[in-house]
Amino acid sequence: MNTLRTLSAAIAVAASMSNLAYAADPAYFTQTDKLRMTRDAQGVLLVEMNTNGGPFTFTAKAHDAFVDAFYHISRDRDNKIVILTGKGGQWMGGIDFASFGDVSDPDVWSKVHDEGTQIVENVANIRVPMICAVEGKAWVHTEYCAVANVVVAGAGATFHDAPHFAGGIVPGDGIFTTWSYRMGPTRAEALLLDPQPFTAAQAKQYGLVSEVVGDGQAVARARELAARYLTKPEVTRRNTRTYFIAPLKLALVQQTGYGLSLEGASAAALVKSMKAAKQ
Amino acid sequence: MNTLRTLSAAIAVAASMSNLAYAADPAYFTQTDKLRMTRDAQGVLLVEMNTNGGPFTFTAKAHDAFVDAFYHISRDRDNKIVILTGKGGQWMGGIDFASFGDVSDPDVWSKVHDEGTQIVENVANIRVPMICAVEGKAWVHTEYCAVANVVVAGAGATFHDAPHFAGGIVPGDGIFTTWSYRMGPTRAEALLLDPQPFTAAQAKQYGLVSEVVGDGQAVARARELAARYLTKPEVTRRNTRTYFIAPLKLALVQQTGYGLSLEGASAAALVKSMKAAKQ
Amino acid sequence: MNTLRTLSAAIAVAASMSNLAYAADPAYFTQTDKLRMTRDAQGVLLVEMNTNGGPFTFTAKAHDAFVDAFYHISRDRDNKIVILTGKGGQWMGGIDFASFGDVSDPDVWSKVHDEGTQIVENVANIRVPMICAVEGKAWVHTEYCAVANVVVAGAGATFHDAPHFAGGIVPGDGIFTTWSYRMGPTRAEALLLDPQPFTAAQAKQYGLVSEVVGDGQAVARARELAARYLTKPEVTRRNTRTYFIAPLKLALVQQTGYGLSLEGASAAALVKSMKAAKQ
Amino acid sequence: MNTLRTLSAAIAVAASMSNLAYAADPAYFTQTDKLRMTRDAQGVLLVEMNTNGGPFTFTAKAHDAFVDAFYHISRDRDNKIVILTGKGGQWMGGIDFASFGDVSDPDVWSKVHDEGTQIVENVANIRVPMICAVEGKAWVHTEYCAVANVVVAGAGATFHDAPHFAGGIVPGDGIFTTWSYRMGPTRAEALLLDPQPFTAAQAKQYGLVSEVVGDGQAVARARELAARYLTKPEVTRRNTRTYFIAPLKLALVQQTGYGLSLEGASAAALVKSMKAAKQ
Amino acid sequence: MNTLRTLSAAIAVAASMSNLAYAADPAYFTQTDKLRMTRDAQGVLLVEMNTNGGPFTFTAKAHDAFVDAFYHISRDRDNKIVILTGKGGQWMGGIDFASFGDVSDPDVWSKVHDEGTQIVENVANIRVPMICAVEGKAWVHTEYCAVANVVVAGAGATFHDAPHFAGGIVPGDGIFTTWSYRMGPTRAEALLLDPQPFTAAQAKQYGLVSEVVGDGQAVARARELAARYLTKPEVTRRNTRTYFIAPLKLALVQQTGYGLSLEGASAAALVKSMKAAKQ
Amino acid sequence: MNTLRTLSAAIAVAASMSNLAYAADPAYFTQTDKLRMTRDAQGVLLVEMNTNGGPFTFTAKAHDAFVDAFYHISRDRDNKIVILTGKGGQWMGGIDFASFGDVSDPDVWSKVHDEGTQIVENVANIRVPMICAVEGKAWVHTEYCAVANVVVAGAGATFHDAPHFAGGIVPGDGIFTTWSYRMGPTRAEALLLDPQPFTAAQAKQYGLVSEVVGDGQAVARARELAARYLTKPEVTRRNTRTYFIAPLKLALVQQTGYGLSLEGASAAALVKSMKAAKQ
Repeated sequence: MNTLRTLSAAIAVAASMSNLAYAADPAYFTQTDKLRMTRDAQGVLLVEMNTNGGPFTFTAKAHDAFVDAFYHISRDRDNKIVILTGKGGQWMGGIDFASFGDVSDPDVWSKVHDEGTQIVENVANIRVPMICAVEGKAWVHTEYCAVANVVVAGAGATFHDAPHFAGGIVPGDGIFTTWSYRMGPTRAEALLLDPQPFTAAQAKQYGLVSEVVGDGQAVARARELAARYLTKPEVTRRNTRTYFIAPLKLALVQQTGYGLSLEGASAAALVKSMKAAKQ
Repeated sequence: MNTLRTLSAAIAVAASMSNLAYAADPAYFTQTDKLRMTRDAQGVLLVEMNTNGGPFTFTAKAHDAFVDAFYHISRDRDNKIVILTGKGGQWMGGIDFASFGDVSDPDVWSKVHDEGTQIVENVANIRVPMICAVEGKAWVHTEYCAVANVVVAGAGATFHDAPHFAGGIVPGDGIFTTWSYRMGPTRAEALLLDPQPFTAAQAKQYGLVSEVVGDGQAVARARELAARYLTKPEVTRRNTRTYFIAPLKLALVQQTGYGLSLEGASAAALVKSMKAAKQ
Repeated sequence: MNTLRTLSAAIAVAASMSNLAYAADPAYFTQTDKLRMTRDAQGVLLVEMNTNGGPFTFTAKAHDAFVDAFYHISRDRDNKIVILTGKGGQWMGGIDFASFGDVSDPDVWSKVHDEGTQIVENVANIRVPMICAVEGKAWVHTEYCAVANVVVAGAGATFHDAPHFAGGIVPGDGIFTTWSYRMGPTRAEALLLDPQPFTAAQAKQYGLVSEVVGDGQAVARARELAARYLTKPEVTRRNTRTYFIAPLKLALVQQTGYGLSLEGASAAALVKSMKAAKQ
Repeated sequence: MNTLRTLSAAIAVAASMSNLAYAADPAYFTQTDKLRMTRDAQGVLLVEMNTNGGPFTFTAKAHDAFVDAFYHISRDRDNKIVILTGKGGQWMGGIDFASFGDVSDPDVWSKVHDEGTQIVENVANIRVPMICAVEGKAWVHTEYCAVANVVVAGAGATFHDAPHFAGGIVPGDGIFTTWSYRMGPTRAEALLLDPQPFTAAQAKQYGLVSEVVGDGQAVARARELAARYLTKPEVTRRNTRTYFIAPLKLALVQQTGYGLSLEGASAAALVKSMKAAKQ
Repeated sequence: MNTLRTLSAAIAVAASMSNLAYAADPAYFTQTDKLRMTRDAQGVLLVEMNTNGGPFTFTAKAHDAFVDAFYHISRDRDNKIVILTGKGGQWMGGIDFASFGDVSDPDVWSKVHDEGTQIVENVANIRVPMICAVEGKAWVHTEYCAVANVVVAGAGATFHDAPHFAGGIVPGDGIFTTWSYRMGPTRAEALLLDPQPFTAAQAKQYGLVSEVVGDGQAVARARELAARYLTKPEVTRRNTRTYFIAPLKLALVQQTGYGLSLEGASAAALVKSMKAAKQ
Repeated sequence: MNTLRTLSAAIAVAASMSNLAYAADPAYFTQTDKLRMTRDAQGVLLVEMNTNGGPFTFTAKAHDAFVDAFYHISRDRDNKIVILTGKGGQWMGGIDFASFGDVSDPDVWSKVHDEGTQIVENVANIRVPMICAVEGKAWVHTEYCAVANVVVAGAGATFHDAPHFAGGIVPGDGIFTTWSYRMGPTRAEALLLDPQPFTAAQAKQYGLVSEVVGDGQAVARARELAARYLTKPEVTRRNTRTYFIAPLKLALVQQTGYGLSLEGASAAALVKSMKAAKQ
């Protein structure tokens, strides 16, 4: 009986495995469907954030899944360059707040806090050159993008911090740390306290974006840069990434835990005020 | 009418002022009755924590009042040396948790967080040599003591972190930072995770206490040290304090906000679990 | 006799109290006439630096008074937003050096050092969104402005570091730290070593100013921003400020004491060279 | 054909799965046989380092496997307390240097560097109280132990840094950082430059060990402490660990990469000198 | 006999001494011919990097000599202002890689690492205002320039990082730290990963250059600034430099050793790959 | 004529050169007679602080000379191990305050400040294992000793901070930083505020001393340790030193400048009070 049940489970695993494009792809490529991962023969890993193959909406489940996904990406030495992008013409346009449940519950927020501090460290620990390729809206969690070495944006891309101060909570998850690092604190504070979308051209002028290309060309340009990097020795590529990202990683390690705790307290206060308003 | 009312208020102020021991004493000496302050002709300020003149029990009101009291002490250049001690044979033996109200309320904890980060900075900003004189129980908020330059303890004194892990919350208010600084992290972690009183002799061996004297002699010995310091120029005294406390102040600035946020989340979880247990 | 004297003093207090616009205003609102403080029903505190109601000239007395004033502002939870501005069409245009006395006297400078390190920390510890509204000359102590989250400047405003290198002393009081943080170190060093006024438009391009408005509109625009912030929960507002200012506060804690000491030594050298020149 | 091959592989997976003690155990429990993991009903995870069930010898394969193992442990919220120990009466007594291959090859060392920096961060990121239980020899990689909150050692345990300076390479992998943090730099430098075993009693006096128990009692005592911790709310436990380990984690993030690079250079020099000696 | 030999050596010394322009010049002025040093009556030291009096090519010998040269410059209190420039219309246009020998030899790289960390500290320790005057190509080691307080560039000057990523090694010697400090990390990362010359105007816009002047006017403009600084007291000048450079010095102390170690590993990997390619 | 004068100077140089023990010794060995340097065939450099070959008294001239001496020692790759000791049975027993001149003169103190910050960095930059061998009194500038990796003391040695607080000035030159690093801040603060000699045995218990040997055996024991270190590859030795000293060097870079500034202000206050007392 027991053997039969195990066998049946194994067959189910085998069935799911048959969906893999390449038998050789590591298991984490398909651990979450929020991230579509494909790797070319040179080891350039394309990571596409998506919801059912279209524009990506962030959820609590993605928050959890991204932690491990970025970890596995960082650990896999077969990845030589990482390109992070979206799908369906958008980088990340929205977030499903309700999916997080009652954020005033300390046990709920404890999970958010722990995952949130870990996720930015895991992205920073990707030890190969990382390029963020942006099309459309980059309105949520652009700190993942800002931890790349280079950000290429389509001309029509827009950047924004939609979910925090506008929604009544502290921008505490790494967005202030990374925006301040890339754009300077004056711009980061103004844009986070009075949030509104800004263009790719502005983002380049501010320091968040490295180059602006034609709409729809961001990934192609990222691949060009990747090809250039690949002419250098692997140790050079890995060590350069490690060295360049170190100061930002340090800032994230020092600031993100506290930021998420302050954000959690503000979320609890928001829920309290909403409940009071209902009465 | 208005004038009369104002006059009447002024007379009330005048009446309260007549309770002052010396007309020359600054107003903050009597701003809170939790701290009895007396200053001798040489400028040695004795600060006695007390509840109605006897052993001191910490309260939410004291938490608020101490912030300002230590600030005013730090600002008053007529203070040449500061001695912090208790009253009634105890340094600080207990805490009235209920006085803090519902610590799972984010607005309540916001006040605790803000005051708690400020209070340790204000003690650190006392820019004259500071001596902590301990008799009896130092079971609560010994971080105020650990921010002194010298800690003199009566032989029967005991040290403890009574309110945190034992009570189900994170020791996040400066106690870990200061104990770790003074006693090393191994001892701090063990004593805070498995809290139990330790003696003055142990505290000296560990590095929290500078010297142990006979019971009841701590303040007298502190005065001896103060007299010795007073033979040096004032700038020497002020600058030495400023220089010596700088590394600990920096650690408190870097760590205490986060610590109090983590403690607040744990307090909310504790309240939640207690409510659940009641049902 | 004694009672009469006390009563007489009380009446004097009462008389001064009658100048208060609102009986409910806290005492620190009128502790120094260098800062005119008014607070609207929403808790927006307007702080106007002034000399006798007109353009403000900085003095040693203001240096002392500002320490406490900013402390009290930071401690008063009835302040929901703080706007710092000048009066008479100027933010701060001049300084009365003579008021500081003999800055080569180590006791005199000790006071400057202690106040100077404390004042920037107290501004940084204002735990609600802070807006600096600039009209006219901001030529002295613009570090107070740079510790705000947002700086709104009238089109005709000019920025400058008038008193330091131009006057022969080190810019050590926080101006280098804040200018470098906001404008980058290259600009800060060039502007401080070869000091000359720069316009609001330049200041915006450099990163010191967040937005430029029509002359005379700075406070009005600050109130608009304040109104927008006030739609968010209080904990969100306080925690966002606390989080955003933390890196700059840390830099000030690490750098300002040394800066003021180096400035003090340069002041002593300046006095020495001036005495030598006279002979 | 292809389907058959996939099915066959699935059956192999199923077969290996039948070795799991509990069907509910997560997959990482058996990802490496170097770490035997068992978890009781209260969530206390016992991690036993071992070689074929006996005393553990460190290898290059373990270096790689431990990175992921500690990561998965840190990510699994079903772990409430983690106890790290050895097997066969030894914590970790030896290391198989040859398994690392040619450490003077920059590609070989690049892997060591990357894994080595990641492994100590992953242990530090275990966000529940962690106890290290030591019996016998703890002669290799005791930094994993020193990143626990509490170290319980059997009376006959001995501590040592066997593989570094004695073997001709720099102690750069975290051992200096953690020993210095726990025992003070003077002791760490002396013991690492002139390496020789020291007893559990000495280790306790120095600050590396929290308590000494009878031989063979370390795990039992760790379970007692774990049981005590488990009476506190989960958020309290997680946040206390997070808070306490933060300063050491920060030091590891700042120092370990450089340390491993310096160690790598010394390994290359050692290989060079050994080759020269052979000729 | 012995006396004769000594006398003969002394005569050789005397002969070389007769080449000195001024008998009063300190010995380090002529310790290396790579740096031509001349000092005017006001103490403005002009340091011209050169190869045989013409455009300078960097070599291993210069790497060693610069360490001491900058140290001696920093120690000589007769230097009141330091101007660093090139010769023959170029700042530093090229590097002779072969002069470094086999950079995959750990003993060779150990010297590079030790000198490289020391050289940037020695430049940072120059405790008088330092101006970098750039004409032509500044394509190598521009970090020496970026540690000045002010950078004046001729309109036709170009900036570049020619030797690192383009050559297959990590930009680890201070160039990332200083470029990131002056131009922000986004620009630094993009320009270092995809290296190509940029103009003086761009360099000014980015923050690396303080002012752009006509071609051939950089040193003259530097002398103008120097003359202005010289009107201030010497302690003011020294302390201002010390204060302004402190944050960058700290970053260099924290980052350069690791950077050079990572660069050394990449150099070893490059040599390995080149040897493999030859076979 | 000119040739004759040059020849005559050359002969004088030759004469002074004949005093060198070994023609091969580098010039810095004899640059100051305060430090007698001898190096054995294995490259162990013995540095003996002395006054005319006997017990050493510190002077302003030594303060200046030590800066360069330690720099040259750090730069000379022929030094494989450095042993720092005294002469005539004393490490450093006294200081000649008068030799510093008028320490209230800002120009005088500027030199002290600049040299004092540089000297501890130069000792920290000695990139080979460094051993401090103490006999007799180590009463002055023991921070040079505490920057060694290992301190060996004769049983009768005594440690003390004689010149600072006892003399009325701030212990700001590195002694607090190093004592706090080695002995913990509680002990450092107590011993510096109430200065009195402590024994070698106490110093070992506190963490300042690594081992205690028989009187007169300190250098011999240091040579034994040196011989043991010399069995390791040179890169291992250099890199281990570099790695171990990094945290203390960082603390010295961060703290010593400010400390010396605060000490300078206190010295000015002391002189002022002494002048006032005379009147």
